[in-house]
Amino acid sequence: MNTLISLRTLFLEELKSKITATEPAGLYDPVHYILDLGGKRLRPLLTLMSAKMYGATVKDAMNAAVAVEVFHNFTLLHDDIMDAADLRRGKETVHKKWDVNTGILSGDAMLIMAYRLFEGYDQKQFYELNKIFSKTALEVCEGQQYDVDFETRDDVTIPEYLNMIKLKTSVLVGCALQMGAIIAGVKEQEQKLIYDYGIHLGLAFQLMDDYLDAFGDPKTFGKEVGGDIRENKKTYLYLKSIENEDCALELKEWFALDHEEMNEDQIDEKKEIVKVFFEASGGAAATLDKIKSYTDKALSIIEELDLSEESKKQLRDFSLELMGRIS
Amino acid sequence: MNTLISLRTLFLEELKSKITATEPAGLYDPVHYILDLGGKRLRPLLTLMSAKMYGATVKDAMNAAVAVEVFHNFTLLHDDIMDAADLRRGKETVHKKWDVNTGILSGDAMLIMAYRLFEGYDQKQFYELNKIFSKTALEVCEGQQYDVDFETRDDVTIPEYLNMIKLKTSVLVGCALQMGAIIAGVKEQEQKLIYDYGIHLGLAFQLMDDYLDAFGDPKTFGKEVGGDIRENKKTYLYLKSIENEDCALELKEWFALDHEEMNEDQIDEKKEIVKVFFEASGGAAATLDKIKSYTDKALSIIEELDLSEESKKQLRDFSLELMGRIS
Repeated sequence: MNTLISLRTLFLEELKSKITATEPAGLYDPVHYILDLGGKRLRPLLTLMSAKMYGATVKDAMNAAVAVEVFHNFTLLHDDIMDAADLRRGKETVHKKWDVNTGILSGDAMLIMAYRLFEGYDQKQFYELNKIFSKTALEVCEGQQYDVDFETRDDVTIPEYLNMIKLKTSVLVGCALQMGAIIAGVKEQEQKLIYDYGIHLGLAFQLMDDYLDAFGDPKTFGKEVGGDIRENKKTYLYLKSIENEDCALELKEWFALDHEEMNEDQIDEKKEIVKVFFEASGGAAATLDKIKSYTDKALSIIEELDLSEESKKQLRDFSLELMGRIS
Repeated sequence: MNTLISLRTLFLEELKSKITATEPAGLYDPVHYILDLGGKRLRPLLTLMSAKMYGATVKDAMNAAVAVEVFHNFTLLHDDIMDAADLRRGKETVHKKWDVNTGILSGDAMLIMAYRLFEGYDQKQFYELNKIFSKTALEVCEGQQYDVDFETRDDVTIPEYLNMIKLKTSVLVGCALQMGAIIAGVKEQEQKLIYDYGIHLGLAFQLMDDYLDAFGDPKTFGKEVGGDIRENKKTYLYLKSIENEDCALELKEWFALDHEEMNEDQIDEKKEIVKVFFEASGGAAATLDKIKSYTDKALSIIEELDLSEESKKQLRDFSLELMGRIS
């Protein structure tokens, strides 16, 4: 993982040096603020790793990596407005620190700034990078819309849910990896393969996030454990649990309660009871199975990639480290 | 002007056929809704006219023309949220008909959809179109931010105001024209010249809009006459008027009144008095002078363009027709 740490350091330096606009301050201050909030920077690191493994330099991939991170933070900025979230990584969200209008406009600027970062590439790469980027960006919007739609629907199916998280989360992971391959100039079939690896890794990652939301360690999870339960989020964990008819009725009743009409003790009680149902129903085990199946698929795609054994090992280690949050 | 009418008809057909996504409906219904609200479609028509005059086909320019219109409507959508506007072209705004979250996300999707429309061009044109488009799009965001900033500042200078309207309005007019030239494959110097024509036309157009806001005919203006006065907008008309020391103090007092604390009779009275000051101060005449100076500059650039006499005449007629709203 030393490689990753040094890549992240390099990336953070470049992020600073490539995003420098300052005026008007009302537009660009929030951009710098959200980009400085931290985070694991997983997506841009994937772009850099992928480019390097396929024989390009990290330097060549830096503009695309920064674009991926700027885009990701654009989505966080606008999502936080839509979720009326006050905090992001322990700090005030942009619309809270400034206001909603600022959040909208600075987010818009970030989306455009992400596109502009591709201008340093030659016309062929520019075209290819733009194409996968735009496709992905629109899918992320669609995923966000489905997520919103699902809040007010009680008939969401598991395939619908999996499609939603694929759009909202996985396609950007696939895109980040494919961009590295584009920059290294590998052929389209190989690009598709590494993209596909990213899709499965992203699906496993998001399902694990759903699982850890209920069963994670509050010390390491980084968000409120049980936040999805509080907000009645119909995650995979929930949808698999209500497939068990012995638990469905009671779980649905718990998930009909509005957290705004409950005190924190009642919410804590709800969290504990729901977790018992998640386990008793077999939903928790089914979620772990699904995570394993996506992870296994991702690992099997690694074997098909046109990469050195060393690179494959690095991807395997990376995948397992990412999933290691479970154990 | 027959050419323009038939171009507009062609454009509206293509707009329908190129923007077809429907699912998720919560994301795409508002996109179709705002694109169907109407409007003069001036910007895309400029792209089509420019391409045709430089020897490309209207068909070749259609994707770029649709991109310009989709982008323009994206800015209207997000601006309406920021202005808390209930109506756009006599119909409910998107955030009013749906909600703010829908407005944010559908707007984001439109910005991405605009970019995707360039994908039909070859890689060289794709690169050039994207580059001017991204530069322009970011400038429009900057212009919007300055506009917001100016609301709470009472020391806005005339150069600052002119720079703001250039960013918010003119650069997209220039961009629309330059795109046509790019599609026709004319050399960069010529592209810059037609862009520059658009900048001056756009500045004249926006100043005329400021002027007509006060002195326009309610039957033809299309918006509330005096809306800028109601909202204390520090337009060129206002800024020139307060240069006259005999009027400055009283005008500033009128522009310190909050319309939310006034009834409609009081606002009507304010409008009438402010208009008298605009004329007495010489601000109205100075605004007409400035409009004439920008229009003359635009007309003089037409003479320098590498176009047939017939095309030059068409551009002259178009410019004067646009400005004809004054007389």
